[in-house]
Amino acid sequence: MASSPFRFELLHSDTGCDARRGRLHTPHGTVELPTFMPVGTLGTVKGVDIARLRETGAQIVLGNTYHLALRPGANVVAELGGLHVFMGWQGPILTDSGGFQVFSLAERVKVTEKGVSFRSHIDGSALEITPERSIAIQEELGSDFAMAFDHVVALPNKREVIEDATWRSVRWAERCLEAAQREDQMLLGIVQGGLDPELRQSCAKALVSLDFRGYAIGGLSVGEPPEEMYSTLEATVPALPTERPRYLMGVGRPEDLVESMARGVDMFDCVMPTRNGRNALAFTDQGTVRLRNSQHERNRDPLEANCPCPACQHSRGYLRHLFQAKEMLGPILTSIHNITYYQRLMAEARQAIEADSFSEFRRAKLAAWGAKDSK
Amino acid sequence: MASSPFRFELLHSDTGCDARRGRLHTPHGTVELPTFMPVGTLGTVKGVDIARLRETGAQIVLGNTYHLALRPGANVVAELGGLHVFMGWQGPILTDSGGFQVFSLAERVKVTEKGVSFRSHIDGSALEITPERSIAIQEELGSDFAMAFDHVVALPNKREVIEDATWRSVRWAERCLEAAQREDQMLLGIVQGGLDPELRQSCAKALVSLDFRGYAIGGLSVGEPPEEMYSTLEATVPALPTERPRYLMGVGRPEDLVESMARGVDMFDCVMPTRNGRNALAFTDQGTVRLRNSQHERNRDPLEANCPCPACQHSRGYLRHLFQAKEMLGPILTSIHNITYYQRLMAEARQAIEADSFSEFRRAKLAAWGAKDSK
Repeated sequence: MASSPFRFELLHSDTGCDARRGRLHTPHGTVELPTFMPVGTLGTVKGVDIARLRETGAQIVLGNTYHLALRPGANVVAELGGLHVFMGWQGPILTDSGGFQVFSLAERVKVTEKGVSFRSHIDGSALEITPERSIAIQEELGSDFAMAFDHVVALPNKREVIEDATWRSVRWAERCLEAAQREDQMLLGIVQGGLDPELRQSCAKALVSLDFRGYAIGGLSVGEPPEEMYSTLEATVPALPTERPRYLMGVGRPEDLVESMARGVDMFDCVMPTRNGRNALAFTDQGTVRLRNSQHERNRDPLEANCPCPACQHSRGYLRHLFQAKEMLGPILTSIHNITYYQRLMAEARQAIEADSFSEFRRAKLAAWGAKDSK
Repeated sequence: MASSPFRFELLHSDTGCDARRGRLHTPHGTVELPTFMPVGTLGTVKGVDIARLRETGAQIVLGNTYHLALRPGANVVAELGGLHVFMGWQGPILTDSGGFQVFSLAERVKVTEKGVSFRSHIDGSALEITPERSIAIQEELGSDFAMAFDHVVALPNKREVIEDATWRSVRWAERCLEAAQREDQMLLGIVQGGLDPELRQSCAKALVSLDFRGYAIGGLSVGEPPEEMYSTLEATVPALPTERPRYLMGVGRPEDLVESMARGVDMFDCVMPTRNGRNALAFTDQGTVRLRNSQHERNRDPLEANCPCPACQHSRGYLRHLFQAKEMLGPILTSIHNITYYQRLMAEARQAIEADSFSEFRRAKLAAWGAKDSK
């Protein structure tokens, strides 16, 4: 542990809320916290080449174990030099464990205490992921951050189903810790527990006793109202150690990021900037812009006048034309803009925390977006 | 004419063949000849953002009048600042006249001496393009180079059909010259005449008497054997003035470019680098590479070791994976590589001409590609 290349620094806590400014040292460089990780499911952030991705300000990207294990296979990625070399990203990478995709994508899933048997969403072939197998795949991929393999269930659900899955996730987390061998990979535990504050706290306590170097909050942003996600965070975050990074998985909209940072979250990932970008929805400081809307046809203004991204070198009219004409460049440019928007938001948030002004920052952003201030 | 911003310089003629090294000055900068123009049909070279396009070494791009007139409309492009501002390309742009697409894409085409009535390939709406209208659209788009509106017919065809279309094209070329008003746009005439050397020569002579500032050779690479295209070039090029640029439209494969440069052609355009790139076919100095082929699965080598393009920062195995996983980045990167390949080929060709070694260059390239030397 003494020689670990991983180190979390808590630089400053905002005096007006629970937002915090941190730093995470990794074998592939330093991540300034809070941070947002673009999702590179299959070894590529969809439509964005690596140099462009770097230009957005992204410091760390996410890869999906389930997807990469099916295509091209973890052994192929390893043979091609590991995930960093494979996708050409020299910075830190986090891989998820596959737990979420097994439940959202796979067919005919069977869960036992040993692990999960399922059929591939691509060709229906039979596969099994156990906690040990998930760690082995992530070690073969060679990411900097690995996630414990968890048992994810749909919400809402029966209390006993959620409890059962939560405690199985804790047992699996312990097996993941035992299986993990790479010193250059840091494993994070994942707090489950649905929307029940006490179950979340019990789960957090159990995971903390296992002494993970970092903790994720999983199973949220799966359709519940934002207010319930925020109150679940308020119950969960205080149960996690101050001196370890906290990662809220799969979240979310800009307002969710701001609300969650105010509650002490350090790390985020979400497909929203790229998925919405491919669908002609752009994020701006004045709220979202639907680029297919005819009002943009002759609009000479860029999406944002002060944005340095390549999309903002063009008019809204041009971007609209690209989507109308079904040109690839529309999704490409709008994805780059949206990732850039998220990265600029996080950079502004970090500055606001340093200045103890995160609460004002939050109010101003929510007001400009037209979002409801939840507090 | 004295104050024209256009000027063609013939810098050097290769002593061993008809290849020539020239330079074309335009209101948007200088083009080193011979040159290859990537095709930006709808105001975008498919999948390639403008900065990446510049990095390929491209000096001039092509836009399609027919496509842009239908989507978003020439008036919209004009309102958004003209085609240069619209697509963000500060270098020279050439627009075709729409003649080719009217015949390849439009439905229910009716040709009269006045012009062509047709229905849009998108929504079936009725439209008419006359020589005057084609020039008006191209002036509205604001390209540096405009093409005369010509009557293109399928090959093979009855001699009287080809003759009729050829002479109509000459009459329309004259009307285009009369209609053209912009001093900052240079109009090129298009030699037609099928595969008949005498008809080509008569057409060239008629157009030269109209004193165009540049001449294109159209109606080739439409399915005829390469040998027939080359022999048609041999019949046509000598009928064109030495002191004007020569543009072979819609051509072609790397070997076609080399063979045509050896016969005195200065300018080319083709969708091949991007269309093939989208379809996982890459050009290299060792011939074409089919990236979907399973032999590339674990291949750590780039497409070309000495290529500076972003695709060649990755392994062939990674590029194959992108195509297998249907990731947008596969078409994007391979399109960029192919355009880069074409631009590097043209740069090498220019050097070879300057060194009077184009014939050796041509032999070496054809041998490495495994192509048949036609002479």
